Amino acid sequence: MMTDRIRSFLDARRPEGPCLVVDLEIVRRNYETFTRALPDSRVFYAVKANPAPEILSLLAELGSSFDTASVAEIEMALAAGATPDRISYGNTIKKERDIARAHALGVSLFAVDCMEEVEKVARAAPGARVFCRILTDGAGAEWPLSRKFGCVPDHAVDVLERARALGLRACGISFHVGSQQTDTEAWDRALCDASAIFHACAERGINLAMVNLGGGFPTRYLKDVPGAEAYGQAIFESVRRHFGNRIPETIIEPGRGMVGDAGVLKAEVVLVSRKSPEDRLRWVYLDVGKFGGLAETMDEAIRYPIRTPRDGAPTAPCVVAGPTCDSADVLYEKNPYELPLSLTIGDEVLIECTGAYTTTYASVAFNGFEPLRSYVI
Amino acid sequence: MMTDRIRSFLDARRPEGPCLVVDLEIVRRNYETFTRALPDSRVFYAVKANPAPEILSLLAELGSSFDTASVAEIEMALAAGATPDRISYGNTIKKERDIARAHALGVSLFAVDCMEEVEKVARAAPGARVFCRILTDGAGAEWPLSRKFGCVPDHAVDVLERARALGLRACGISFHVGSQQTDTEAWDRALCDASAIFHACAERGINLAMVNLGGGFPTRYLKDVPGAEAYGQAIFESVRRHFGNRIPETIIEPGRGMVGDAGVLKAEVVLVSRKSPEDRLRWVYLDVGKFGGLAETMDEAIRYPIRTPRDGAPTAPCVVAGPTCDSADVLYEKNPYELPLSLTIGDEVLIECTGAYTTTYASVAFNGFEPLRSYVI
Repeated sequence: MMTDRIRSFLDARRPEGPCLVVDLEIVRRNYETFTRALPDSRVFYAVKANPAPEILSLLAELGSSFDTASVAEIEMALAAGATPDRISYGNTIKKERDIARAHALGVSLFAVDCMEEVEKVARAAPGARVFCRILTDGAGAEWPLSRKFGCVPDHAVDVLERARALGLRACGISFHVGSQQTDTEAWDRALCDASAIFHACAERGINLAMVNLGGGFPTRYLKDVPGAEAYGQAIFESVRRHFGNRIPETIIEPGRGMVGDAGVLKAEVVLVSRKSPEDRLRWVYLDVGKFGGLAETMDEAIRYPIRTPRDGAPTAPCVVAGPTCDSADVLYEKNPYELPLSLTIGDEVLIECTGAYTTTYASVAFNGFEPLRSYVI
Repeated sequence: MMTDRIRSFLDARRPEGPCLVVDLEIVRRNYETFTRALPDSRVFYAVKANPAPEILSLLAELGSSFDTASVAEIEMALAAGATPDRISYGNTIKKERDIARAHALGVSLFAVDCMEEVEKVARAAPGARVFCRILTDGAGAEWPLSRKFGCVPDHAVDVLERARALGLRACGISFHVGSQQTDTEAWDRALCDASAIFHACAERGINLAMVNLGGGFPTRYLKDVPGAEAYGQAIFESVRRHFGNRIPETIIEPGRGMVGDAGVLKAEVVLVSRKSPEDRLRWVYLDVGKFGGLAETMDEAIRYPIRTPRDGAPTAPCVVAGPTCDSADVLYEKNPYELPLSLTIGDEVLIECTGAYTTTYASVAFNGFEPLRSYVI
């Protein structure tokens, strides 16, 4: 959402061209909200959501740990002040030489979801801790995940047994209930599966101790979403239900939930037109689109709040599109967006809740447009 | 396709990590094929397809003109040796200050598709030539365009009349029949519309002289496509059919057709796994995916040929995915891809026909992975 600090920055700096402004005070507040709502869970910030050095430094200082996807992200977390024991290499798809690099940097916690990956970790990071990611169905998520990550729950027991056989420390289970998950009960089924895996492993003499609850915590875009407290309560109850008195260590990996609402993207209306004079639908073209940072409008999944200087005036639906010569660069068309009828060329618009998955999704220079600039204040 | 030059380059240099290699000899051959197939058309290379300086310099030297989407692309074309009269600012969505910059750089040909854009051009580039883009239905294209660009044909007459009234030179019509267009007759209906607009304009005393036939010329991916000659013949016949003896000046804007088959992307198999031992479908994870350059696999629209060191061995279908922690980073899943059963971790694969819409679509650093490197030889 817009904050006084972001407003003051934009008023004072008046940056030319589209840019993202992230308010660190909101990131701080979100971190504190997570630690209050899930007091027994360690927070591993999902670096991929927004790896700005200022964000990583603040979170490192606050005591956060980091979920990373690559050696480059590990290096960023280290540079921000995180010690290697606070870094998880959470990508289940790793080159063996990257595992070796991470190991050399001191990282000792790795995600796996198959025998082949366990063998790589065993060779490149002997003795490391591994957790096995399992598939979940993702019901209730606005952005349900594909089957890309994770194995079927039954297979996880064999994967973890193989890890132990190869000298690794089989430490737990992870899953992801889907991005922008609005059902606080979504974790329950996966925790039930995790509990069954804990039991099956115990029968083979493997004592798991950790459940990585993943991310999925939503940002409030246009629709209201439950607060972190509601998630914390539901997850706590599910853990109790499935694990009884043997509560495992838990980890959460918020990305969107940590930085999504901390950013505001300033953009400009480049054109407002109609395909014919009789057409009731206006097309509103902005100077930022799918290739400039708003990739998550793909399939119109994420619907950002857009503020205009004409808010309060009568509105009508319009198609919202980006500035490139690419016909796929359309943000909202299937479900047109209500914007003021008086909105006009040159107006500055503020796209809220754009702190996550924007700067890094931006393309290098598609159509010659530079990547999204970002200011962290 | 793979060429001896690309093979030699890869063998000699053995670049680490994924990279694109573009063979300029293929670009040269494609340019010559276009000029032979459509001898009466001026070629405006669509810079957005691949703006590598070496490609632009070669095409400038061969006599090509350039279709640009932004001031940055105009500057790249100028730096490559093109004179301003060989540059079209073909984006219908332009900031007025960018039109002024282009005008100051000497560019005098602009695309418009509505009254509002005409007014901007009239203010920022007085006296310039404008062509009006019209909507087409895109039937027959593997990547049909949305309604983002162009107005309904009837409206174009009013738009061009307004241009003239504001002191601009209304010079013609443009359209785009859809990307990767495999129906050589696709241009016919749009040419029929263009001809009607020519007549309607003539009745108002506006003598149009140019038809911009756009792009859409395909690259041969896995499926065969007609050759440039077939397109040239079909377009020539359509122009004759609709314009009779008053043949207009024509322009083509090949992008994919000019560079698509000139590039080969070297990648590596990071993981081959199954979701469970019983699963018949393998998942093959590469070190390049949707965010590293293969964005055009979106909706599995473009199906690239993938060569492996095991070609010839028995194959089975598999899902092909990229290396990021993003569940949308899956290339082929709805229609699994046949790859050798013996394909294994560490194998180098060559993804052919990746010369267009790869390097610039790549994200800045999603998941910490660097953008796709490219070598032009």
